[in-house]
Amino acid sequence: MKSMVTTQLENGRQTEVLLADDLKDLSAHLGEYGRLVLWVFDTNTVKLFKQLPPSHVVLESGESAKNFSSLERILSSALDEGLARDGRIIGFGGGVVCDMSAFAASVYMRGCRLTLVPTTLLAMVDASLGGKAAIDFQGMKNMVGSFYPASEVLISIDTLRTLNEKEFLNGLAEVIKHALLSQDEELYKFLLMRKNEILSRDPKTLAALVELSLKVKQWYIEQDPLETLGIRQSLNLGHTFGHALESSSHYLMWGHGACVAWGTCRALEAGVVLGVTDKAYASGATKLFKSFGYDIEYRIGRGDWIEYRDHLLKDKKKVDGNVRFVLLEKQGSTILMPLDLQLIQHLVIAKPIF
Amino acid sequence: MKSMVTTQLENGRQTEVLLADDLKDLSAHLGEYGRLVLWVFDTNTVKLFKQLPPSHVVLESGESAKNFSSLERILSSALDEGLARDGRIIGFGGGVVCDMSAFAASVYMRGCRLTLVPTTLLAMVDASLGGKAAIDFQGMKNMVGSFYPASEVLISIDTLRTLNEKEFLNGLAEVIKHALLSQDEELYKFLLMRKNEILSRDPKTLAALVELSLKVKQWYIEQDPLETLGIRQSLNLGHTFGHALESSSHYLMWGHGACVAWGTCRALEAGVVLGVTDKAYASGATKLFKSFGYDIEYRIGRGDWIEYRDHLLKDKKKVDGNVRFVLLEKQGSTILMPLDLQLIQHLVIAKPIF
Ligand SMILES: NC(=O)c1ccc[n+]([C@@H]2O[C@H](COP(=O)([O-])OP(=O)(O)OC[C@H]3O[C@@H](n4cnc5c(N)ncnc54)[C@H](O)[C@@H]3O)[C@@H](O)[C@H]2O)c1
Ligand SMILES: NC(=O)c1ccc[n+]([C@@H]2O[C@H](COP(=O)([O-])OP(=O)(O)OC[C@H]3O[C@@H](n4cnc5c(N)ncnc54)[C@H](O)[C@@H]3O)[C@@H](O)[C@H]2O)c1
Repeated sequence: MKSMVTTQLENGRQTEVLLADDLKDLSAHLGEYGRLVLWVFDTNTVKLFKQLPPSHVVLESGESAKNFSSLERILSSALDEGLARDGRIIGFGGGVVCDMSAFAASVYMRGCRLTLVPTTLLAMVDASLGGKAAIDFQGMKNMVGSFYPASEVLISIDTLRTLNEKEFLNGLAEVIKHALLSQDEELYKFLLMRKNEILSRDPKTLAALVELSLKVKQWYIEQDPLETLGIRQSLNLGHTFGHALESSSHYLMWGHGACVAWGTCRALEAGVVLGVTDKAYASGATKLFKSFGYDIEYRIGRGDWIEYRDHLLKDKKKVDGNVRFVLLEKQGSTILMPLDLQLIQHLVIAKPIF
Repeated sequence: MKSMVTTQLENGRQTEVLLADDLKDLSAHLGEYGRLVLWVFDTNTVKLFKQLPPSHVVLESGESAKNFSSLERILSSALDEGLARDGRIIGFGGGVVCDMSAFAASVYMRGCRLTLVPTTLLAMVDASLGGKAAIDFQGMKNMVGSFYPASEVLISIDTLRTLNEKEFLNGLAEVIKHALLSQDEELYKFLLMRKNEILSRDPKTLAALVELSLKVKQWYIEQDPLETLGIRQSLNLGHTFGHALESSSHYLMWGHGACVAWGTCRALEAGVVLGVTDKAYASGATKLFKSFGYDIEYRIGRGDWIEYRDHLLKDKKKVDGNVRFVLLEKQGSTILMPLDLQLIQHLVIAKPIF
């Protein structure tokens, strides 16, 4: 186990992210906790283990498992296993399993211990760090939850071998987003130089990629642990444009990552039009997304505008009824502002600007 | 509105307890929040209002409502009313409504605003302050929950007029317990001197009683906000002995307060036997309980011992498998220790010692 990142959170709490050599190394580390643990898997991640730990619960895979019934299943298993407050829930899976395990740990006996083992690229670079945990409720994403950082996050790069291409690209879009938000250019340059090793999932390369990406998220979390200061919202770059696409019924085949990549490029364009973003930087970043295979030039059909707009206006992150977009002033520096609906329409259905 | 107590909690958060002149005064204060609120009642407390606030949800009354289904009902109503993160849940009721409202507020959009209006004496002096919120789960009390202090607690003494005698005595037992745990003798003396006004529920007297009692709880909370330092556990004085009685099937007619009073006297006796508690002090405190009508001399039948013992051994607050009891060294000073089963048996089924 090698320490990757240690994030200081409020209240003296911290999350330590450790890199395991492989799943065996990781299991050995977790084995030291003895029997006072409950593992949480989903139907896919449970297959990564030949020998299952005795105390475990297996959720359905996918977003639809982020609900109260999964929460009750985890809590009930914890109770059956006799976990006390000093017991530990170990979430082994993608963002869904991480979110469910963290939420369950936050409320079990008003808070028990928590280890997260993210097994998707998205969960490694995003969902496992930062303490946000939530379930979907009445069709609304992440409506109910808590802030409850894991004390440790264990990463075993070998789990990424079985991840399908779409899920891999979901995570990679967040990595590229992090590269634009970073206070330095290391991650950006790494993406430019190591494209082939990344796409062929060379383990050493992926470990370095995850570490660089986590450090960017860490920076934003430490500035604004509870998302009350407006700094952490920068991490939503591309998400407002992207979510509306993701939610529109015609784009169900688009993955989350593809939408985030597309949305980030729309935000870059908006910045250019408004004189906020440097044109050359926007153009370079757009090319970076493109080079990893994202369809960022796509535009929605004229007939789909109304549905798209309606999804946009439902965005959760409204202030005084206005949806605010994250725009990039320059690398690592963002600004939050509402955008004119006509400009948005122009950007999402017109021809590309550059 | 008059400020009674302001409790400083970790993270710079605080709970302000305000005394209203009456329900009208209280409603006027809450009216200032406008429409971004959701009121939570139970079927009894909803009757205290002639004109109901437009956004409200009414839970079943009683302990059995402390469950996931009530939680989902509150969250779902909050969503229907369009509450955002800056919206406010107002819990208006006894400990059950306060616990449910606080738990719901803690998870709604990862935390919205919270006002508690305790309407039982127990909730006024205990459940509304300290940030503990929980539901019962699979027959286990307070198994699932969070720490989420209300930003304000509003007390309107006139709500106590409709409380039945048993519920009133439930709260009073906690008040007497607080008197023993207090760092000074003010509350103890108040109870001795003002017994008649208390029992006749003279409003001014009750307001002073609630304030003195809250100040004792405040002291313990501020020392140990998250119950991690072993100080706040002192507030469990009498509860281990008492809960076991409450849980034994033969004592269903005993109220929670009657059990706490009885349990506190057993803890005092244990202290005397072990040379921890001053005999005169224990005897005085026992008389104080008695003077308010609690049946503290009651002993369980020989045939009920096994069931009582089994409930005792199930106590949640075990350390290394040992149930630890709160004993009183002297007024305001406690010690936590396991007790010999034979001694316990002697105390709960033998004749009184003094
Ligand atoms: N808490 C946060 O800060 C945060 C941040 C970002 C996203 N999220 C949440 O994360 C979720 C998305 O995460 P996700 O994309 O990881 O989704 P996911 O957990 O559903 O995983 C995607 C799919 O990959 C499968 N899978 C997981 N690991 C695998 C592996 N090693 N090999 C093969 N298949 C594997 C899963 O079973 C699932 O079918 C969303 O619910 C989102 O809200 C949370
Ligand atoms: N969070 C904490 O720190 C804490 C502390 C102590 C107790 N509690 C919890 O509080 C609960 C017990 O509280 P409680 O005794 O207030 O129970 P409760 O809320 O069930 O109230 C008792 C009864 O009185 C009724 N009632 C409430 N206000 C009334 C009024 N003004 N007039 C007439 N009837 C009224 C209720 O409808 C109920 O039937 C338990 O669930 C316990 O776990 C929590």
